[in-house]
Amino acid sequence: MPAGQGEFDRIARWFAPLAARLPGALGLRDDAGVLDLPAGRQLVVTTDAMVAGVHFLADADPADIAWKLLAVNLSDLAAKGADPLAYSLVTALPADLPADWLERFSAGLAAGQARWGIDLLGGDSVSTAGPVCLTISALGTVPRGRMVQRCGARPGDLVAVTGSVGDAWLGLQLLTGQAEFSVDPASGAALLSRLHRPEPRMGLISALRQFAHAAIDLSDGFAADLRHLAEVSGVRLRVSTDRVPLSPAAAAIVGQFPGLLSNLLAGGDDYEIAFSLSAEDWPALHDAAALAGVEVHVVGRVEPADPSIGAELVIEDVAGTRIVLQREGWQHY
Amino acid sequence: MPAGQGEFDRIARWFAPLAARLPGALGLRDDAGVLDLPAGRQLVVTTDAMVAGVHFLADADPADIAWKLLAVNLSDLAAKGADPLAYSLVTALPADLPADWLERFSAGLAAGQARWGIDLLGGDSVSTAGPVCLTISALGTVPRGRMVQRCGARPGDLVAVTGSVGDAWLGLQLLTGQAEFSVDPASGAALLSRLHRPEPRMGLISALRQFAHAAIDLSDGFAADLRHLAEVSGVRLRVSTDRVPLSPAAAAIVGQFPGLLSNLLAGGDDYEIAFSLSAEDWPALHDAAALAGVEVHVVGRVEPADPSIGAELVIEDVAGTRIVLQREGWQHY
Repeated sequence: MPAGQGEFDRIARWFAPLAARLPGALGLRDDAGVLDLPAGRQLVVTTDAMVAGVHFLADADPADIAWKLLAVNLSDLAAKGADPLAYSLVTALPADLPADWLERFSAGLAAGQARWGIDLLGGDSVSTAGPVCLTISALGTVPRGRMVQRCGARPGDLVAVTGSVGDAWLGLQLLTGQAEFSVDPASGAALLSRLHRPEPRMGLISALRQFAHAAIDLSDGFAADLRHLAEVSGVRLRVSTDRVPLSPAAAAIVGQFPGLLSNLLAGGDDYEIAFSLSAEDWPALHDAAALAGVEVHVVGRVEPADPSIGAELVIEDVAGTRIVLQREGWQHY
Repeated sequence: MPAGQGEFDRIARWFAPLAARLPGALGLRDDAGVLDLPAGRQLVVTTDAMVAGVHFLADADPADIAWKLLAVNLSDLAAKGADPLAYSLVTALPADLPADWLERFSAGLAAGQARWGIDLLGGDSVSTAGPVCLTISALGTVPRGRMVQRCGARPGDLVAVTGSVGDAWLGLQLLTGQAEFSVDPASGAALLSRLHRPEPRMGLISALRQFAHAAIDLSDGFAADLRHLAEVSGVRLRVSTDRVPLSPAAAAIVGQFPGLLSNLLAGGDDYEIAFSLSAEDWPALHDAAALAGVEVHVVGRVEPADPSIGAELVIEDVAGTRIVLQREGWQHY
């Protein structure tokens, strides 16, 4: 791909240090990177892109953008039970970026790399007349045949979810000034942190591989993603809103504005992991998660699909009344 | 990454068929793809992005864009001596694309896949308010330790190049109406085809692995890329303009306008491969290339760098006079 000297300078200054620990990255001075896979392992590849004005506000802190770009890719690896190996990065950047944009962006990647133990392998750096457009392709590995798929949910399974749901949506309302609720400063900061600095559930990777029949990371929205899982698995998922885990801040807000709960279920950007497993494995999974510092909660169960209806997601309130959400997930079209 | 229903429909209709032959792509219905590496092989990863208005004209045929996007990535794999394995694709598309854009784009990918024996593994599909922004990350494999790097050129080596140089630049002049030359229709079509439908030199992959000490694909420009190879290898490359292979059309044009030769050497988008090898291996490499239907020509030799100057590229005309190009390669900054 054609490149100008500006590209080489940028790569050497801001990206090569991120690849310094990975010999196969060749200092980002070659056309490609080269990697060994541990013996007996398969390669897992996931790719997520983010565009200014669509996935983040144009004036967002570049360090937060970088962190999130890496985090959302690692969240996909985690949901598949894959250990991270390396990642490629493509930046398409306009000429009028602030002078410190790349410095901040690179710092955000460095922070994520240090936290999650992954290094930059290579990529590309191009110009655009449009908004910032960023892509990471993350590589991971699993023991052969052990990738956790979306399609394995079985009738009788429990459905569980890590962490808490809806904080990022609440944070987005605060960020954009659309919040009808008010929160104390500490809670507000916590909600914004969930939006800006998601934490992929890397601690759960080996337990998911051991126990999960199916898994998906919650990016589109709790409801939308569980529907994906139900559809690909060909089952009915029945979940109870009163079992959906909420953070203390979110619980307080929903206590005051109960109508917001449906927004939290559809909000997206949670980067938690929803998964199904046998009921008898729940205690062992719960213990493994606790050891890893990850909270897990059962939110429902898997049932056979009604042949006349097909795969579906059924959301019920505490009284067992079915709830139909106007919107189940984040849409950008 | 959040996704709307439009994204799922698009993926199912236009992209899932491109992944149908690869079981690990899981029908593009999961968060990730999974792949086995052949025993004893290392993974090679290369990534190239293309942006409308920078790498192609906004009204270009989407089938040509797709072909080229795949070709430029495979050209990098070929230059590394890597056999293609699979690729990921990210499309960032504006809402106002022509109705048949995705159909044409998908058809171009399908044509490239059929030609080069590679399948779609996964990716992402997002919206943008800006120009079309496309990324492919191509995965290949080499026997362990056999990736051909940029840095291996040794004093005494010959420097060779596949095919012919400069056609794509001439095609671009025709396309943009900037040509000071005129050509017959058949030659014009051939030059435009080199620009729109580059042919990565897949036939040379195993011979490069066997014989090349260093290699780079010509994307920035013949001169710029040979300079990269010289710098990373720490040597002086000496090449003769009269040995640079030109197509019949290009030779006729340069015969009429000798001053254009320097533009051809700096034009970029050739997607030929330049490489160095021992003189004694040249006959065997030449025979292997001929069997694969790839023309190869010696264009120069590798010499020790002058310690007081460092690595350099020396371009000489037929009389041995050194030529200094005003511009050695394509710049998009």
